[in-house]
Amino acid sequence: MPTTEARRTLRLTLEYDGTDFTGFQLQGKGERTVQGTLEAAIQRLSGAACRIHGAGRTDAGVHALGQVAHFETVWPIPAANLAFALNNVLPRDLVVREAREAAAGFHARFRATGRVYRYVVLNRAAPSALLGRFALHIRDPLDLAAMRAAARHLEGSYDFAAFGQPSAPGRSTVRVVRRVDVRPWKDCLLVTVRGNAFLRQMVRSFAGTLLAAGQGAIAPADVKTIRESRDRAQCPPVAPAWGLCLLRVEYDGTRIQRTKTDEDVFGEAE
Amino acid sequence: MPTTEARRTLRLTLEYDGTDFTGFQLQGKGERTVQGTLEAAIQRLSGAACRIHGAGRTDAGVHALGQVAHFETVWPIPAANLAFALNNVLPRDLVVREAREAAAGFHARFRATGRVYRYVVLNRAAPSALLGRFALHIRDPLDLAAMRAAARHLEGSYDFAAFGQPSAPGRSTVRVVRRVDVRPWKDCLLVTVRGNAFLRQMVRSFAGTLLAAGQGAIAPADVKTIRESRDRAQCPPVAPAWGLCLLRVEYDGTRIQRTKTDEDVFGEAE
Repeated sequence: MPTTEARRTLRLTLEYDGTDFTGFQLQGKGERTVQGTLEAAIQRLSGAACRIHGAGRTDAGVHALGQVAHFETVWPIPAANLAFALNNVLPRDLVVREAREAAAGFHARFRATGRVYRYVVLNRAAPSALLGRFALHIRDPLDLAAMRAAARHLEGSYDFAAFGQPSAPGRSTVRVVRRVDVRPWKDCLLVTVRGNAFLRQMVRSFAGTLLAAGQGAIAPADVKTIRESRDRAQCPPVAPAWGLCLLRVEYDGTRIQRTKTDEDVFGEAE
Repeated sequence: MPTTEARRTLRLTLEYDGTDFTGFQLQGKGERTVQGTLEAAIQRLSGAACRIHGAGRTDAGVHALGQVAHFETVWPIPAANLAFALNNVLPRDLVVREAREAAAGFHARFRATGRVYRYVVLNRAAPSALLGRFALHIRDPLDLAAMRAAARHLEGSYDFAAFGQPSAPGRSTVRVVRRVDVRPWKDCLLVTVRGNAFLRQMVRSFAGTLLAAGQGAIAPADVKTIRESRDRAQCPPVAPAWGLCLLRVEYDGTRIQRTKTDEDVFGEAE
């Protein structure tokens, strides 16, 4: 006789060092993904298989300070104990910052109304042994004014097909980019991108495009031409994954409380 | 007929992630040390063996943002090209921040008049996937006032035998500690220690002692008693290596220009 167990939705805020993950999303056997690692930890503790849904399907090597994920379960663990329990079995490069009960019907991906990514460029002569995992090193000085002028052409509601692929062929490539901010911070330039959602490789394509403008390979106005072409082949090279970090995910227009660690490694959040 | 080659002294500022090093100083065969890695890189480029001398002989796992080292050589490479050349052959976790010509007789260790170390404690419920390599995670809130009161007993010119070993048996265990500063920074507590020089394990013993005070395991006033005992066995457990970083080395009373990266990972320098 089946028992009636209460089904619940739990919401997690995740921090991870993407260096040794093949990305967020479950892939082939033997790939070390954030999703797979987390599902295995939950199954180990709860005794039942579960399916994790993440707000942003970060690529291999991309980091996160405030990824949001959810899962449904009948596991009765108090939400207040969940982060501690999971962190005890998770590897050191994947941490549950916070766990809480979510309303039935909450979906980390489909309910998200905004995502904030940051691309970190270390712009000085010498590379950094400590920051090297989290920042792209560019030796020659970048032209900040050109990068800022170029960024203006990436803001707005547009078809961004030149800058990335949709999650499935034929899906819309229109996205709303609220802000592309470029600011110096110590030895670094921080590129912070806010939008409702992003195409695959879109933020790294933005970073690559801004770097091309900062290096004088393209003029700021060329970015408008590239965008309007809707041609992926017109986009400058995609910037490497390790400079990128998913800072936070927003829901219902309410900004998720900024985690202090945003600033520990990636500098002042706005 | 031997040629007369000009002997010169070159001074390097080093940054390293200590995680995968067995410390600064050359040890047995097969150990991966900062000194050994650097000497091999110089030999590879210059074709001649050399001996590196570092200002602070950091332990296994301890990091550095501003370690200083020197070597003597007849290698005629311009100092302005040296950092770039070395960084091209060094592994990613060891970086030459700066290289310059030093006066004959300069010695990174014996001429140093001050060293600044920082111990980073992440003091929040969840560990950090990004900062975990560089900070000790303490889950329960630490008593900042108690740590600061305890720190007062570690400042001054004293026999610090309770807190570390001299470089060789029988050597003096008197050191001058100018300041032990404890301050909150985001989710962290930063313990910054300035002194003329330090005994082996001394800064980590300070950190362990301050943590014991912050956790209520000892009273602040106990630190004076421990210091006056000059008994190593009285000291609370040494804090682990990975929270410690050599921020900079000072010469001739002149403070070395603060490197901006102090603040990238380890927060505001004072």
